[in-house]
Amino acid sequence: MFLLDIDLESKEPIYKQIVDQIITMIEEGTLTSGSKLPSTRELSLILKLSRNSCIHAYEELEAREYISIIKGKGAFVSNVQKHLNRGWNIAWKKQCSDYAKRAVELDIIKSEPVTKKGMISFKSIAPDEKLFDLEQVRRNFLNGIALEGEKLLNYGYAKGYRPLIEYLEIYLKDKGICLEGKDILITNGFTEAFDIILASITKPLDSIICENPTHNTAIKIIKLHELNIASVSMENGEINVEELEKALSSGNNKLVYLIPSYHNPMGTVMSASKRKEVYELCKKYNTPIVEDGFNEELLYSSSHVSSIAAVAGMDNGVIYLGSFSKVLFPGIRVGWIVADKGLIEVLESVKRSRNIHTSVLDQMLLYQFLKSGDFELYMKKTRKFYREKYEFSIECSKRYLPHSRIYGEGGLYIFIELVDIDSRVLLKRAMEKGVIFMPGDIFFVNEKGRNTFRLGFSRLSLKDIEKGFRIIGKCIEDIKANK
Amino acid sequence: MFLLDIDLESKEPIYKQIVDQIITMIEEGTLTSGSKLPSTRELSLILKLSRNSCIHAYEELEAREYISIIKGKGAFVSNVQKHLNRGWNIAWKKQCSDYAKRAVELDIIKSEPVTKKGMISFKSIAPDEKLFDLEQVRRNFLNGIALEGEKLLNYGYAKGYRPLIEYLEIYLKDKGICLEGKDILITNGFTEAFDIILASITKPLDSIICENPTHNTAIKIIKLHELNIASVSMENGEINVEELEKALSSGNNKLVYLIPSYHNPMGTVMSASKRKEVYELCKKYNTPIVEDGFNEELLYSSSHVSSIAAVAGMDNGVIYLGSFSKVLFPGIRVGWIVADKGLIEVLESVKRSRNIHTSVLDQMLLYQFLKSGDFELYMKKTRKFYREKYEFSIECSKRYLPHSRIYGEGGLYIFIELVDIDSRVLLKRAMEKGVIFMPGDIFFVNEKGRNTFRLGFSRLSLKDIEKGFRIIGKCIEDIKANK
Repeated sequence: MFLLDIDLESKEPIYKQIVDQIITMIEEGTLTSGSKLPSTRELSLILKLSRNSCIHAYEELEAREYISIIKGKGAFVSNVQKHLNRGWNIAWKKQCSDYAKRAVELDIIKSEPVTKKGMISFKSIAPDEKLFDLEQVRRNFLNGIALEGEKLLNYGYAKGYRPLIEYLEIYLKDKGICLEGKDILITNGFTEAFDIILASITKPLDSIICENPTHNTAIKIIKLHELNIASVSMENGEINVEELEKALSSGNNKLVYLIPSYHNPMGTVMSASKRKEVYELCKKYNTPIVEDGFNEELLYSSSHVSSIAAVAGMDNGVIYLGSFSKVLFPGIRVGWIVADKGLIEVLESVKRSRNIHTSVLDQMLLYQFLKSGDFELYMKKTRKFYREKYEFSIECSKRYLPHSRIYGEGGLYIFIELVDIDSRVLLKRAMEKGVIFMPGDIFFVNEKGRNTFRLGFSRLSLKDIEKGFRIIGKCIEDIKANK
Repeated sequence: MFLLDIDLESKEPIYKQIVDQIITMIEEGTLTSGSKLPSTRELSLILKLSRNSCIHAYEELEAREYISIIKGKGAFVSNVQKHLNRGWNIAWKKQCSDYAKRAVELDIIKSEPVTKKGMISFKSIAPDEKLFDLEQVRRNFLNGIALEGEKLLNYGYAKGYRPLIEYLEIYLKDKGICLEGKDILITNGFTEAFDIILASITKPLDSIICENPTHNTAIKIIKLHELNIASVSMENGEINVEELEKALSSGNNKLVYLIPSYHNPMGTVMSASKRKEVYELCKKYNTPIVEDGFNEELLYSSSHVSSIAAVAGMDNGVIYLGSFSKVLFPGIRVGWIVADKGLIEVLESVKRSRNIHTSVLDQMLLYQFLKSGDFELYMKKTRKFYREKYEFSIECSKRYLPHSRIYGEGGLYIFIELVDIDSRVLLKRAMEKGVIFMPGDIFFVNEKGRNTFRLGFSRLSLKDIEKGFRIIGKCIEDIKANK
């Protein structure tokens, strides 16, 4: 008897489901040492699956020493003794909470295609390491240690490293944000900031509004909190205000999540007038805004547009999330929340209950970079470096993807909307030619966006950018030709 | 009309509740600029509260510029214009989720008495900064940067910094832990480790077993997850096995949380035979163990006792949590989970969804300390340093607290059980004399432990240890004399 329970709807890859279930059977003793497994051909027929998934599964099982494949004879359960030696074996995956299962299912690192060696990858939007100046890192670290000494190594405060908070206060005031009655909490980057905010002001089945498409990590966190999403379309790269008002007026929404600057994935910037309009609408319907300012600094040419938090003035209806991860070092897990003082008091206790505080060394290093002026110089270099890649990417997209719609006004990526072509089909073909990118559907909260994708250019050379675009353009033509 | 809604049962101090509610009334415009507040005497009569709480509240309101107290005239609402300028004012504290409210309520940093300048503090169990060697920190940091360069500053892996994981594998094997079918996940210390484990394998109203008393942060996290607690008494500093079996057999418990080495707060070590017995019991009732090994390294004289994770061998029923925070640098937020490989895969996705990964620089620095041998040398120095304080504390406790029961076999603290004296009463009196400690009730899951307290000696000089014990002893005598 050989029964596997494969869920075709699950985000977990088929081959992985096969692997996990066979391992469980081996470890629980249902499949004993030396017993023969069905061939991959038989398995694919029994389960009505692609033979490739079965082959992939058996390869992994062999690599993990659960089975041995003997040429011409078949696949046999091996090493069972080793795994059966357990007098006490808990089937942990079965024990996991729904929350944990969702975290696995929504973990695109585990489900999306992986960049292979030698590929031109437009997937990443992490900074280019070539920009990092180790001498500056050394100097700023040693300065921090020299100034503050041993106490940097003992417990810090949940709220954050005080000199950094004080520096950010000045930095934010310079950006026009009024801090009267507000406060700052340091977090382990945007991800933690958004997670603890949702944990603190929502409960399951609450509804929240976001742009569609939007940052995929935000979608993941929203789904992990079991919230309902009222999504609002983007129109020419900006939120559709009529739709927003409809959403605001029709539901009891807990908050509106927005990325006004260098929107992820679209790379677009919401105009100053639209920001004001959106702000007034949210105020009218008493629905707070969570503003994601994650790469607001990556301005190339367009003039500065004030954050919605600045538009709010003294009002306390905006929660602003900041981070320098994308512009300085992602490895330094430091972000911050600017919000009403009373709310920050609560978030501080939540933060403390989850990990006591953010790494003091990371915070100290960031502070030293800011204070020494190295950050400002670095930003100038960074903007110049990425602007060249950005402009070249725009140029290439016009040349090689002539019938597509191109979005992006800065930042580290551009966003492409194809006419009538499935970007998953395109991705498959492009990967065969050595190019990988982020399919657009992962940024949409409903089944939309199948004809879109995001191209991150930050880590690619101009040569690879051009080559990559050329290959994608060729793949599109091939797909059209075969229709 | 002046109505406040004071909850006497809440863990939030009375004065804080008064402050928050008056601020809300001022900010919402219920109390307008210039209006007179009741006097503290009147307020204490209306609300049936101690006058002290009211005075404390008014002092804080004045410090925060919400009211001005004019001698001989009374307290008046001030600065209202500033706060009322808000066209949009959200009463955030009211908006918060029950989870967030619990996090505030359970945050002892906000509710327990604060150490004031000049006090002898037995409250802290953080390491003494005098032990930190900045030259070693500099050298190890620079070595790490020189070896790994720029990639340390870019995104890392949710699972952790690979060289550190590989080092820990060897380290754990040396301690007799079998890693067959198991894996390691790096976390932001114990707190995050325990939090994501509970989030991943429990749901609200599930039941878990723990020792009573136990680590107060663990209790907080358990309560935040809305779990029921089946507590098992400690008997001569070890868990009562009969009670444990009763708890295991009578409920459907998700896990047993244990601190076998240098138990917090008792400082006791579970014997090897008891560990075996406890392990077999949990196995019999198929209830996994979460073993907190947070300061297992702080062994002074007693011979090494293997962790329960080592007793388990190949079995996968133990989740082991490790950390060097208490023995190296707490500021470095690095801990780890050793568990079944399948479970670690799930926890990795949960970790990624919460903060992407732990600071790479922290992990790198810890790894360099381990690899260079500095950690081992440091541990020798540390043990010697704390052993002296430990032995002296035991000596002092026998001398100055002769009628008390003393627990503690190492680590950074000892635990005192008084005969028929309330440690909160003792604490109040001791604080008047300039000594502070951690009252024992915060470590108990029920109303027990009122006659106990924990004395952390790690950061005190021998002189202050003696002085502190003498003062506590004197306070006990005074209390007895006044009975």
